[in-house]
Amino acid sequence: MKRIESLTNQWVKETKKLHKKKYRDITNQYILEGEHSVQEALENNGLIDCVITTDDGLLKYKSILSKVSEEQLVVVTDGILKQLSELPTPQEIIAIMKKSEELTGFGEKILVLDHVQDPGNVGTMIRTADAAGFDQVILSEGCVDVYQSKVQRALQGSQFHVSIVTNVALDKWIEQAKMRHILTVATALDDTAMSFKELQLTESIAIIMGNEGQGVSSDVLLHVDKKVYIPMKGQAESLNVAVAAGIVMFHF
Amino acid sequence: MKRIESLTNQWVKETKKLHKKKYRDITNQYILEGEHSVQEALENNGLIDCVITTDDGLLKYKSILSKVSEEQLVVVTDGILKQLSELPTPQEIIAIMKKSEELTGFGEKILVLDHVQDPGNVGTMIRTADAAGFDQVILSEGCVDVYQSKVQRALQGSQFHVSIVTNVALDKWIEQAKMRHILTVATALDDTAMSFKELQLTESIAIIMGNEGQGVSSDVLLHVDKKVYIPMKGQAESLNVAVAAGIVMFHF
Repeated sequence: MKRIESLTNQWVKETKKLHKKKYRDITNQYILEGEHSVQEALENNGLIDCVITTDDGLLKYKSILSKVSEEQLVVVTDGILKQLSELPTPQEIIAIMKKSEELTGFGEKILVLDHVQDPGNVGTMIRTADAAGFDQVILSEGCVDVYQSKVQRALQGSQFHVSIVTNVALDKWIEQAKMRHILTVATALDDTAMSFKELQLTESIAIIMGNEGQGVSSDVLLHVDKKVYIPMKGQAESLNVAVAAGIVMFHF
Repeated sequence: MKRIESLTNQWVKETKKLHKKKYRDITNQYILEGEHSVQEALENNGLIDCVITTDDGLLKYKSILSKVSEEQLVVVTDGILKQLSELPTPQEIIAIMKKSEELTGFGEKILVLDHVQDPGNVGTMIRTADAAGFDQVILSEGCVDVYQSKVQRALQGSQFHVSIVTNVALDKWIEQAKMRHILTVATALDDTAMSFKELQLTESIAIIMGNEGQGVSSDVLLHVDKKVYIPMKGQAESLNVAVAAGIVMFHF
């Protein structure tokens, strides 16, 4: 067990840098906050570098922390914890994680996110994919960084249940998916789209959701097998992308 | 057209107070921000007190503003606009609205929110209800204030399409709904719940969604006709409440 009490400690300074994507990319590390997320990491063989807590936290999270090795445990002051956390009122348990290697193979039921920017939406969609029994999530170039703390919080452990591949060039990916007989389906609002309810269930499917404002890129739309829309009865013009993804994924 | 240039102007001070629920309750007014929301208010006979813009905005939003009467138009400086807005980078068009009178009758397809706290979730669920063809949303006591700016932003005009009733005591409401042969259905995670897919379509239905952490109150669960759950295949323990609401509402 390591104990750190100085705010100017070098390790504190280095760790704080993980709030920025640049440093997460360099170090291959990221921050995971809160009881539930840390527990999921422990239970699912997440790659934990260390677990940070306070003296209060040692008592409060006794049962979780009993699964953490002595060498991995770091006890800090409330002041340091507040600096490392990105929450206004942090829980007194934070893990520093190693990014796990991304498996580049193809899943069977795949959610594909095309330039989705909102961290909450990305987190919620990955969590929904997990709940719907999807086994892989593909994030295109230009999506928000999945290791950002807001995404990680929204994930609530789903990052350890589904395979996540980031920074994917979608045009090439779709070509390869089609060669593997994976049905590629994009949500779209044009004349050639069909209601998602008419989609036949298939073994392998990739559902592509687009950016909050622009929808799925026109390049991607050109190459997919099917375009689907969600029939709306009311006067709302569109659905939140995470809600739309949930409706389509739970259809399967 | 009124023109206001002083940050210490009394009207500016009074209007800023609408950021607080207390003043929204006293004055029966609220703030609606952004081009799309103001346009929806204009097109759907929303009760507009005035529309605030800047000199730039007069040009940028010319076509919308042409539908606003001279007496209702207020032109302010960028500094004042920033004070009245609750966004870090405000659009240069804000409406001060009168709350519309709540219709207390019963809809046919009703979404009921039981102590839902997150403004984004409440806004997204009302918008989804609109898209799913639901005609009424009931908010229980203890829900977030629907006139809060974050809720209003997430609504994107749906506040003018569906009837919204706030501050409802759910136990009495459910009793009355049942007397009117409205099928009351709550989402729940207990042994007596059935899959939502087994629910028969009925003419009149009320779908009750619960608080993010606690779910539907035990009191409410005791009195509803049916309890339903969403079958999950993955390892996720729960769905975001707005996604869950979308999946169930679009089943009908």
